[in-house]
Amino acid sequence: MAKVAVVMGSDSDFPLMKKALDVFKQFGIDYDVRVISAHRTPDVAHDFAKNAAYRGYEVIIAAAGKAAHLAGVMASMTPLPVIGVPVKSSTLDGLDSLLSTVQMPQGIPVATVAIDGAYNAALLAVEILGVKYPEIMEKVVEYKNNLAEEVIEKDKKLQGEIL
Amino acid sequence: MAKVAVVMGSDSDFPLMKKALDVFKQFGIDYDVRVISAHRTPDVAHDFAKNAAYRGYEVIIAAAGKAAHLAGVMASMTPLPVIGVPVKSSTLDGLDSLLSTVQMPQGIPVATVAIDGAYNAALLAVEILGVKYPEIMEKVVEYKNNLAEEVIEKDKKLQGEIL
Amino acid sequence: MAKVAVVMGSDSDFPLMKKALDVFKQFGIDYDVRVISAHRTPDVAHDFAKNAAYRGYEVIIAAAGKAAHLAGVMASMTPLPVIGVPVKSSTLDGLDSLLSTVQMPQGIPVATVAIDGAYNAALLAVEILGVKYPEIMEKVVEYKNNLAEEVIEKDKKLQGEIL
Amino acid sequence: MAKVAVVMGSDSDFPLMKKALDVFKQFGIDYDVRVISAHRTPDVAHDFAKNAAYRGYEVIIAAAGKAAHLAGVMASMTPLPVIGVPVKSSTLDGLDSLLSTVQMPQGIPVATVAIDGAYNAALLAVEILGVKYPEIMEKVVEYKNNLAEEVIEKDKKLQGEIL
Amino acid sequence: MAKVAVVMGSDSDFPLMKKALDVFKQFGIDYDVRVISAHRTPDVAHDFAKNAAYRGYEVIIAAAGKAAHLAGVMASMTPLPVIGVPVKSSTLDGLDSLLSTVQMPQGIPVATVAIDGAYNAALLAVEILGVKYPEIMEKVVEYKNNLAEEVIEKDKKLQGEIL
Amino acid sequence: MAKVAVVMGSDSDFPLMKKALDVFKQFGIDYDVRVISAHRTPDVAHDFAKNAAYRGYEVIIAAAGKAAHLAGVMASMTPLPVIGVPVKSSTLDGLDSLLSTVQMPQGIPVATVAIDGAYNAALLAVEILGVKYPEIMEKVVEYKNNLAEEVIEKDKKLQGEIL
Amino acid sequence: MAKVAVVMGSDSDFPLMKKALDVFKQFGIDYDVRVISAHRTPDVAHDFAKNAAYRGYEVIIAAAGKAAHLAGVMASMTPLPVIGVPVKSSTLDGLDSLLSTVQMPQGIPVATVAIDGAYNAALLAVEILGVKYPEIMEKVVEYKNNLAEEVIEKDKKLQGEIL
Amino acid sequence: MAKVAVVMGSDSDFPLMKKALDVFKQFGIDYDVRVISAHRTPDVAHDFAKNAAYRGYEVIIAAAGKAAHLAGVMASMTPLPVIGVPVKSSTLDGLDSLLSTVQMPQGIPVATVAIDGAYNAALLAVEILGVKYPEIMEKVVEYKNNLAEEVIEKDKKLQGEIL
Repeated sequence: MAKVAVVMGSDSDFPLMKKALDVFKQFGIDYDVRVISAHRTPDVAHDFAKNAAYRGYEVIIAAAGKAAHLAGVMASMTPLPVIGVPVKSSTLDGLDSLLSTVQMPQGIPVATVAIDGAYNAALLAVEILGVKYPEIMEKVVEYKNNLAEEVIEKDKKLQGEIL
Repeated sequence: MAKVAVVMGSDSDFPLMKKALDVFKQFGIDYDVRVISAHRTPDVAHDFAKNAAYRGYEVIIAAAGKAAHLAGVMASMTPLPVIGVPVKSSTLDGLDSLLSTVQMPQGIPVATVAIDGAYNAALLAVEILGVKYPEIMEKVVEYKNNLAEEVIEKDKKLQGEIL
Repeated sequence: MAKVAVVMGSDSDFPLMKKALDVFKQFGIDYDVRVISAHRTPDVAHDFAKNAAYRGYEVIIAAAGKAAHLAGVMASMTPLPVIGVPVKSSTLDGLDSLLSTVQMPQGIPVATVAIDGAYNAALLAVEILGVKYPEIMEKVVEYKNNLAEEVIEKDKKLQGEIL
Repeated sequence: MAKVAVVMGSDSDFPLMKKALDVFKQFGIDYDVRVISAHRTPDVAHDFAKNAAYRGYEVIIAAAGKAAHLAGVMASMTPLPVIGVPVKSSTLDGLDSLLSTVQMPQGIPVATVAIDGAYNAALLAVEILGVKYPEIMEKVVEYKNNLAEEVIEKDKKLQGEIL
Repeated sequence: MAKVAVVMGSDSDFPLMKKALDVFKQFGIDYDVRVISAHRTPDVAHDFAKNAAYRGYEVIIAAAGKAAHLAGVMASMTPLPVIGVPVKSSTLDGLDSLLSTVQMPQGIPVATVAIDGAYNAALLAVEILGVKYPEIMEKVVEYKNNLAEEVIEKDKKLQGEIL
Repeated sequence: MAKVAVVMGSDSDFPLMKKALDVFKQFGIDYDVRVISAHRTPDVAHDFAKNAAYRGYEVIIAAAGKAAHLAGVMASMTPLPVIGVPVKSSTLDGLDSLLSTVQMPQGIPVATVAIDGAYNAALLAVEILGVKYPEIMEKVVEYKNNLAEEVIEKDKKLQGEIL
Repeated sequence: MAKVAVVMGSDSDFPLMKKALDVFKQFGIDYDVRVISAHRTPDVAHDFAKNAAYRGYEVIIAAAGKAAHLAGVMASMTPLPVIGVPVKSSTLDGLDSLLSTVQMPQGIPVATVAIDGAYNAALLAVEILGVKYPEIMEKVVEYKNNLAEEVIEKDKKLQGEIL
Repeated sequence: MAKVAVVMGSDSDFPLMKKALDVFKQFGIDYDVRVISAHRTPDVAHDFAKNAAYRGYEVIIAAAGKAAHLAGVMASMTPLPVIGVPVKSSTLDGLDSLLSTVQMPQGIPVATVAIDGAYNAALLAVEILGVKYPEIMEKVVEYKNNLAEEVIEKDKKLQGEIL
């Protein structure tokens, strides 16, 4: 069964990352949630990343703010794809988090999504799993069709309101 | 057989994207290369993205500069994971390309790598394929071990030179 | 009769774009309003842009935030002038939207206005229509004179208050 | 006859702005070129902008760098659409020019194109003229088709080189 | 008698600029306050700047936001020193105003102070007048001594509170 | 006799600051040039600033790069107007120098000019001296007229070349 | 006994800097707190920095905002390590403070921590003292272990809540 | 004997970091140089940081570019003070390196110096060692005096050249 690890640098990131969990619930994908700090619990991070593949995870999502090293630390010790969520912090509007997450050196990619992009991180994980699991890809196809329908519905509603 | 599409917005991006192709050669992964512009050939982009999954591609890499919409356009019309490479252009040092690629709205993620990160985009594609193909994941594991060895070698060499 | 299309990426942009509609009402110019997402309804966007000129639109205004591709997508498929409104989103203060809208590649210009510049987008559309319709240009001339008068009035009022 | 004014803040901008003139030649559109500085020749700028419409210009392109006020000064004194080209200068990579050109206050829009976007400024002027002159719009339609063909040609060529 | 003109682009800048007026009251310096927009009342701006020296002004303070051209427009038409106050607007945190004010081309300097630096703009005007009027310079010397005393007082108070 | 002090943080700034000296020569204004570092020679800086007014200087120009404190240090210890020139250094394109120079706290203004704006710093000093010395102001008036003539000359020349 | 000086540019920085004092209390380290402005009380700053080592301070922490010169001024006149805390001010989100603090010229380093990083500044001071005092280093070791335990506790708690 | 570890993420950083070694030679301080990548050799980094204190290092300098995690990784696993050198890379002018190094979360400070500030990193290390070793602090005092003399010499030389 497909399985994703959602790792966040602080439990204060949980309200943001709940959006990712909701996506996994919607797509029926198992996930684990962990609070692991690249800086405060480096041993746990080390151990977790090293064994993630063996524990059956297929994708890792890592969310962190400021000098956001968590996704990079994960990526440096696992062959699994790692998705990074730059978390907006109290200063600099998330630019520090974004650059710390995306500007990885050659050899250690992190699949970075938008600042505070927890939802999209989960959806990207789902798409990656869809490469392997045809039933997941079918759901992605359906999901994207629904996206269109929602917007089309809003378009019609706005037309009605203006007229 | 695993298959990746490498799409670039202009043939002037080819020298950069060749680094991605070299990665695929190294990992023995088939790829196609296309010059498709989100803005100049929207119909081709539309058609390509819509049919990418049917044509057997499993991951798409899209590279573009400035107001870099190519990866986003791809992502909006395929259930496949799309990796975006923000290309540094003549002004703003690639910041425009990065923000145009990574700051995608909810529902349409783009897995963004570093500015000019063609090499890492390919490696990320390989990791994504590794989720499905165990023999590819094995190669990723081996690759990451080699990364370490190269650095360790350089470390020793530098020690020797300084002493 | 002059006719403008006002397209926005999300219905949440409507309160902002209402300022544009008010300008059109003031100048007596017909407009249509649409919610079309470059990413969530690419087919609708494609169809709309391709047929905009045939449907009698003479200028398109496109408003979007973050990786704001809507104006660029429109511009890539229509010979009409496209005005882009970069919408400030929850992070980066609209810089991402601005760069994604204005930094278009050669061959596909977008006439970009200020971040959240819905009002000015409409006024620019009016000026463009004024090139063709002399009665509209007359109104623009009158409008700019009134602008001055309003400021002169405020100047006098402030003098009075200080004295 | 359609007529565009191309105004630049310094004769050192001429090599950049020549790209705009080439577009006008290609589309058979008359143009005048002027060196007018918002700051060094404010009277000339004032006079030029005030009389531009009477002199038969239908669109103004204004290019300037650093604290780039030229387009704004033009826009404040003419009912014509004004297109601003932010010119990259020796520091800040054109960000100063971009913000000085695009962030206009309510009532005075400037249609801003990319940093150093002289080519696109001209193309935008052509599209604006196309709203009035059907024969110009036809040429724009043809131009955009050719854009696609060039890219398709390059795509084929690259395929051939790689195989 | 020394005389300063305080010009602002919009009456909404008045609460900010009141800080400047308070400085002039404190130093016993005459001032006039005007609402003049570089873009909405270019003729008034033109006339004001051209005649400022003849009307007996000795320094001009100009405050504006976004694409802040007011100080530059003033400086282009007067031999008087012009002090620019970049006003923070609703987006970009005043960076646009700062760059539009300070990055003036060769030949037309604007003495720029901090974003929203109305107080310091007035103090700078006072210092400039102090070059001419010895009694004003004496007051500046006294003012700077008082500055120190205030901080020293606060230092002592904090020591007391902590102990 | 009018007298200006030109202070620079490093002798490597001299080629840039020579532009300022040329302005003073052109206007017949006496100047002294000093290499004083806020950080490396704080005592000299302290002594210089404290005694600048007594030594007969009427304006101080201070040029420095990176964390550019020189102008602020001067301003904190003199009642004279201090003009700051942010010098572009090897990274960040002068943005660090600009913000370090212009964002002064309340009570200690620095009259900041553009990045590398040595020429304009001198011209601003001349304008400040012109407030006191009528013969200098006359020269400024003449200078600004000549500015216009130069541009008008270039405008004519360009017209000729294009025709 | 180890002794640290905590200097802030304004008493309004005290609520922020209290976090640093709490760290010193936790580690049992003596400290003095001073309000000293680089710009408003340059003599006090000068005297304080010059004599800091003689007065028995072993590390200096200096906090300031905007054009934040305080740490640099301290560093220029003491052989002690100086830690700079860039304080977020009302505009630019602390970027000005960060660059003014960290971009010091060769010869005068400032050990800069994150924007508003008062807590970490104190911890860094503790680590520096730990180099000299073994009993302090032991406490740092213990502190870092506790850091891990807190995160591990939160991790467990979150697991429990989700299950 | 005092001992510093200089760690760099890539051997390509060696020419930059040589400036740091020269400082240590000048001050007679022992150092080791290592090439250790936070991302490519995480195990080595982990082991090195964990044992740095036991191996007798008293300060660690870590230099890295882009998403510069090396200093943070070191700091997370040692009680020693860690000095971070943000290395300018091929894009973004070192801003990414600076933010990734300095914006550390609470509990794990990194003493950050200027972009490419290898020289100052070493000098900061020397100052930190000076807290413990009086003979090193004496050398720092002497060094700072010499700094002043060099600048004073250059000041005199420039005076001579101009006269």
